[in-house]
Amino acid sequence: MGDAVLASWRPGATRDAVLAFLEVAESLPLEQRVACFDNDGTLWCERPTYVQYDFFVDALKTAVLSDPGLAAVPEFAALLAGDRAAIGEMGLERIAHELTRLFEGRSPEEFTARVRDFLGRATHPTLGRPLRSNTYLPMRELIAELRARDFTVCIVTGGGTEFLRAVSQDLYGVPPENVVGSLIAYDFVPTPADGAGPALTRTARLVAGANEGPNKVTNIQTQLGRRPIFAAGNSGGDREMLEWAAAGDGPTLALVINHDDADREFDYLGTAETVPDHEAITDVAARRGWSVVSMAHDWDQVFDSSP
Amino acid sequence: MGDAVLASWRPGATRDAVLAFLEVAESLPLEQRVACFDNDGTLWCERPTYVQYDFFVDALKTAVLSDPGLAAVPEFAALLAGDRAAIGEMGLERIAHELTRLFEGRSPEEFTARVRDFLGRATHPTLGRPLRSNTYLPMRELIAELRARDFTVCIVTGGGTEFLRAVSQDLYGVPPENVVGSLIAYDFVPTPADGAGPALTRTARLVAGANEGPNKVTNIQTQLGRRPIFAAGNSGGDREMLEWAAAGDGPTLALVINHDDADREFDYLGTAETVPDHEAITDVAARRGWSVVSMAHDWDQVFDSSP
Repeated sequence: MGDAVLASWRPGATRDAVLAFLEVAESLPLEQRVACFDNDGTLWCERPTYVQYDFFVDALKTAVLSDPGLAAVPEFAALLAGDRAAIGEMGLERIAHELTRLFEGRSPEEFTARVRDFLGRATHPTLGRPLRSNTYLPMRELIAELRARDFTVCIVTGGGTEFLRAVSQDLYGVPPENVVGSLIAYDFVPTPADGAGPALTRTARLVAGANEGPNKVTNIQTQLGRRPIFAAGNSGGDREMLEWAAAGDGPTLALVINHDDADREFDYLGTAETVPDHEAITDVAARRGWSVVSMAHDWDQVFDSSP
Repeated sequence: MGDAVLASWRPGATRDAVLAFLEVAESLPLEQRVACFDNDGTLWCERPTYVQYDFFVDALKTAVLSDPGLAAVPEFAALLAGDRAAIGEMGLERIAHELTRLFEGRSPEEFTARVRDFLGRATHPTLGRPLRSNTYLPMRELIAELRARDFTVCIVTGGGTEFLRAVSQDLYGVPPENVVGSLIAYDFVPTPADGAGPALTRTARLVAGANEGPNKVTNIQTQLGRRPIFAAGNSGGDREMLEWAAAGDGPTLALVINHDDADREFDYLGTAETVPDHEAITDVAARRGWSVVSMAHDWDQVFDSSP
């Protein structure tokens, strides 16, 4: 029966550390039981491209059908041609801003519907599975164990808040209000003369910058109001969140996912993905004594067998 | 047995409307079951002064003991002298900003502890009850009924987010992440050389302005990510939130609290509190057919009998 707990995790130091934390957390006050997970590369596959990026490129292709002029926008031309050199030169931030404009003036409900439509049909280019099925089974098991111990489980993503909110309940059982990400600002449209109610429309502005690095910490505080005692991440953008969670009073756990599994997923952490001049997140983890998940060794299974 | 539902509400059209909404809401998808309550004057007493205002004045008196120079700051001098004319001339916004500076540089944990300490000991000047006991019993009953129907219950306050978060779980069973208010920005203090973790300190800046009027709508969307189908308020600052909730698809309920009970609480709505050039919220309610709670007639009991 005990085998049912973290069933996809292989025995070893990492699983032991997680189980020890789960046990000790049961005696903590409820308000302290907050767990924050990064999403891309921590809860689901982020290679070869972010799912959100795939979504926006798909939306671009749809938009071009009704407005061919969009194909002449330099950022869009590079994306549609798959011109990696041009994309690299422009930078992801500039491209992301331009893509965000595709939904400027749209309602939150329309954006949510578009995200759900995309994730209902898109497949991964090399794994051949539906994109929505590329969540890590062992991490979903961990979320279930935390929740069974009355943790409030939150997702703290560098991606768009509303993008993830559209699917967070379905994928992870996490309601929209527990998703902290890069927030798009809204314009308020007052009640019109005909008496219908007011409305909100998306802008292309970010409320508080990209949700990476130190912003993950300040945004957790402003949006959730509680300091997590558990955090999981896989990149330099998660470092401050992990440090903040790990340095709290009482029992804490900082967990780093190491993508070292070329056979079942991808092998990339700590090399090209490392931010220049920053320490690789696995090196930070080693220095601080955080727990590191080797996908190749610690996980018996990465994805659901039947997607 | 049925009497146990909304036991402090007297039979009548308002209670009937609430019960009808509760019944129809049971068949809605879970993600639509979101309820947003204003706090001051909707869930607890806001007269003669806001509880948050009482807290800050109390904190000012404590601060002056160790730093007497603070008493010379014009805003503080007016507050300490109870100089209503000077306070009125300066305006609440300017006073509030100066009071916020009392906690500049402090940690979120310290601020939370101070709020809890204050509400553990402060009493109402005329009702003679502990301030923390001045929540409206019928509204807590309504929250319980919504929660029993799997609503996500949120508080959307014009006051400080962190002020209310410190006590929202205790007072209403609402966790910090479901409180939307006027958000103070934080400064991020990186991990120091000695290896301890990073920290957050309070600033005196607001992240997205005061949480009133249209800002209540945009902030609900950015912080909760869901449009409420139920909203309750009592002032012009709640109007847009009420309109937004009421105009949604499917069954909705907009509830306005009318303070017409000078004997048991206060009598003030629709007169001096109305924002200049704006329609009184009770008039908006009448025009739109929203439900209005007459505290004097619809509530059998206002507060707990034994605080």
